Amino acid sequence: MTSTNWIDAIAWDDQGLAPAIAQDAETGEVLMMAWMNAEALTRTVEEGRAIYWSRSRGKLWRKGESSGHVQTLHDIRIDCDADVILLKVDQIGDIACHTGRRSCFYRRLEDRQWIEAEPVLKDPDAIYQDDKGNGS
Amino acid sequence: MTSTNWIDAIAWDDQGLAPAIAQDAETGEVLMMAWMNAEALTRTVEEGRAIYWSRSRGKLWRKGESSGHVQTLHDIRIDCDADVILLKVDQIGDIACHTGRRSCFYRRLEDRQWIEAEPVLKDPDAIYQDDKGNGS
Repeated sequence: MTSTNWIDAIAWDDQGLAPAIAQDAETGEVLMMAWMNAEALTRTVEEGRAIYWSRSRGKLWRKGESSGHVQTLHDIRIDCDADVILLKVDQIGDIACHTGRRSCFYRRLEDRQWIEAEPVLKDPDAIYQDDKGNGS
Repeated sequence: MTSTNWIDAIAWDDQGLAPAIAQDAETGEVLMMAWMNAEALTRTVEEGRAIYWSRSRGKLWRKGESSGHVQTLHDIRIDCDADVILLKVDQIGDIACHTGRRSCFYRRLEDRQWIEAEPVLKDPDAIYQDDKGNGS
């Protein structure tokens, strides 16, 4: 078995990407979903922290590079079709979302309206002092 | 506000789809990820159970239609970019995966190999007596 077999086992899509779900290793909360390519996944495993592929910026996204909100890797899984990745992480700073909330999934459907259901823990302007945007 | 605004708020991809993560409402376990289009999401909310869009079969996939392993809807969320859906569900039968396991994310990376880390709870042949395949 070559050292890259574990990467080749992933059923990358026609863009060379796979969805990657980040889940809090302790609480089980789903924090976010982003995308990975083979290089992002390789570096995630090598460095022990979540590194995604930013589709909007067309480059590797070292989660936490602007915000400090690094995701330290605890466990990594793939699903039965090998086309979705699940990361169990420690969320440094307790904030995954670029809006300053713990989870990106802060809007809940109530009476057919999306309601903001989670508090902003830190003002985004204070998070991204030098580097605005959602490259969190 | 029209009654479909909540659907139009979703940033569907160029195929008209969005990833939908199913999470056990009680335990927090991530059970699976599949895809939804506007009709799937509408029906999910109307019927109170997870209904996905099967990309391989090109039709709505009423989760549990073959297996009985219906996912009853507790809560539904969208992320900050409104392009990923999170369902919190009760997993009927405690089996989400067509392999007979609780979660589709049963393979864990250990020493750069994917190891099966979760038991088969029920033989798939016993689950899909009349309708084989992963349309679970």
